[in-house]
Amino acid sequence: MVRTRVHNQFVSLDGYSAGEYVTFDQPIGDASRLFGWFDGRVIEGVHRVQEPVTLDRALFSMWGQGIGAEIMGRRKFGPQQGPWPDDGWRGWWGEQPPFKTPCFVLTHHPREQMVFENGTSFHFVDDTPEEVLRRAKEAADGLDVRIGGGPTTVRQFLRADLIDFMHLVIVPITLGRGVSLWHDVTGFEDRFALESVSSSSGLTHQLWNRRSTGS
Amino acid sequence: MVRTRVHNQFVSLDGYSAGEYVTFDQPIGDASRLFGWFDGRVIEGVHRVQEPVTLDRALFSMWGQGIGAEIMGRRKFGPQQGPWPDDGWRGWWGEQPPFKTPCFVLTHHPREQMVFENGTSFHFVDDTPEEVLRRAKEAADGLDVRIGGGPTTVRQFLRADLIDFMHLVIVPITLGRGVSLWHDVTGFEDRFALESVSSSSGLTHQLWNRRSTGS
Ligand SMILES: NC(=O)c1ccc[n+]([C@@H]2O[C@H](COP(=O)([O-])OP(=O)(O)OC[C@H]3O[C@@H](n4cnc5c(N)ncnc54)[C@H](OP(=O)(O)O)[C@@H]3O)[C@@H](O)[C@H]2O)c1
Ligand SMILES: NC(=O)c1ccc[n+]([C@@H]2O[C@H](COP(=O)([O-])OP(=O)(O)OC[C@H]3O[C@@H](n4cnc5c(N)ncnc54)[C@H](OP(=O)(O)O)[C@@H]3O)[C@@H](O)[C@H]2O)c1
Repeated sequence: MVRTRVHNQFVSLDGYSAGEYVTFDQPIGDASRLFGWFDGRVIEGVHRVQEPVTLDRALFSMWGQGIGAEIMGRRKFGPQQGPWPDDGWRGWWGEQPPFKTPCFVLTHHPREQMVFENGTSFHFVDDTPEEVLRRAKEAADGLDVRIGGGPTTVRQFLRADLIDFMHLVIVPITLGRGVSLWHDVTGFEDRFALESVSSSSGLTHQLWNRRSTGS
Repeated sequence: MVRTRVHNQFVSLDGYSAGEYVTFDQPIGDASRLFGWFDGRVIEGVHRVQEPVTLDRALFSMWGQGIGAEIMGRRKFGPQQGPWPDDGWRGWWGEQPPFKTPCFVLTHHPREQMVFENGTSFHFVDDTPEEVLRRAKEAADGLDVRIGGGPTTVRQFLRADLIDFMHLVIVPITLGRGVSLWHDVTGFEDRFALESVSSSSGLTHQLWNRRSTGS
């Protein structure tokens, strides 16, 4: 079974997953406090951090397991709006993006694809969630597809009932404003089974597994 | 930093991690109930199970991350005792052992090494934990070394203070007899920081991280 999975989606107590303004200085907009708990290296495995293997890190480390493609929104890729300027931007990650798979970037302003030596590629697509997912599954070649965010993108796939597994990380802060994960999302909890665990750091991890439909 | 890590070490409430008698019919001796909660496929990643990604499975899936070599005892490899018979035995796992790295098998009765096509090899060694670990680290080529059990082996490395991280799974059953993980192990808990979490299945996961020594 090929799954669509969300991992390490950080959400504030008031439901925000990103700041309102994303700029070149602030990839997470004015919401960078959301990531204060996160050591990004652990997404490549628990051996990639020098620090203790905590419950938080153990759960963060699922991110890359068996993933063959990612789907992300353009605001995760960069701060530009409207038609893409000719600014040589290749994403926040330099020449070593952590994805190492094809990534489909949702945008109403398509552009040429980009290919990196480490296996990452960015394909800019303007299409429905269903159709983009079809292409991503094809590219994933039997592995799972990660819905990589931001919140606008996750929300869209959630509303279309296209997400099988979702690891949310509830961060014990409020932001007061930003991009909400929950805007216009209602009743999704009935379609999922939830397992929730709080760690000694104060984070709460929610593992949402979609109930299998039919008998 | 290269770590020595123990993963998915199942222990009963009365401290047993294996049965007294291991036979060809019973790899875990008379203690197979210990593994009732375990879906072995998840050690290769959370995508490898059809079932929901639970907290248990998420934690089990750390097993292979960044591991370059394993050290195990001969009773994990097979039920034979004394000098090895000429029985063509190549371990419990057929021609696809899950390890996919060099494995050092502790035994007072060394024999020829075995090499499998999927990257697994078994090297039979009669030496001190320190010396076997030195060889395993060399073979692991910068990755971590897993101390793979059984309990007699884990205990030996624990007593020699050679374990950096240990994921124990406390199973809510008693066995009454078997091979204890704790026999002759005292005071180890002072050298580690513990984070413990219980899942809805009834298992308790203990993440023991050795405190850094020195300043
Ligand atoms: N909290 C977390 O764990 C987490 C995770 C990942 C990212 N983030 C952060 O989230 C922020 C970005 O999230 P966001 O919600 O603002 O935006 P986003 O989901 O990354 O991107 C939204 C944009 O993608 C385009 N788009 C979305 N759906 C489309 C479709 N079906 N067809 C065509 N284009 C489509 C639209 O851009 P156009 O119309 O302009 O083309 C839309 O404005 C960043 O700050 C990022 O760092 C947070
Ligand atoms: N509960 C779990 O999560 C878990 C995990 C892994 C395995 N297991 C189970 O545990 C059982 C095996 O564990 P066990 O504790 O009985 O045995 P073990 O640790 O697998 O093997 C012990 C044997 O290894 C040899 N040995 C150990 N240290 C040595 C050294 N320094 N130098 C040379 N030889 C050495 C000795 O054999 P000789 O003197 O005969 O050569 C010794 O009898 C199996 O049933 C296995 O399925 C359970």
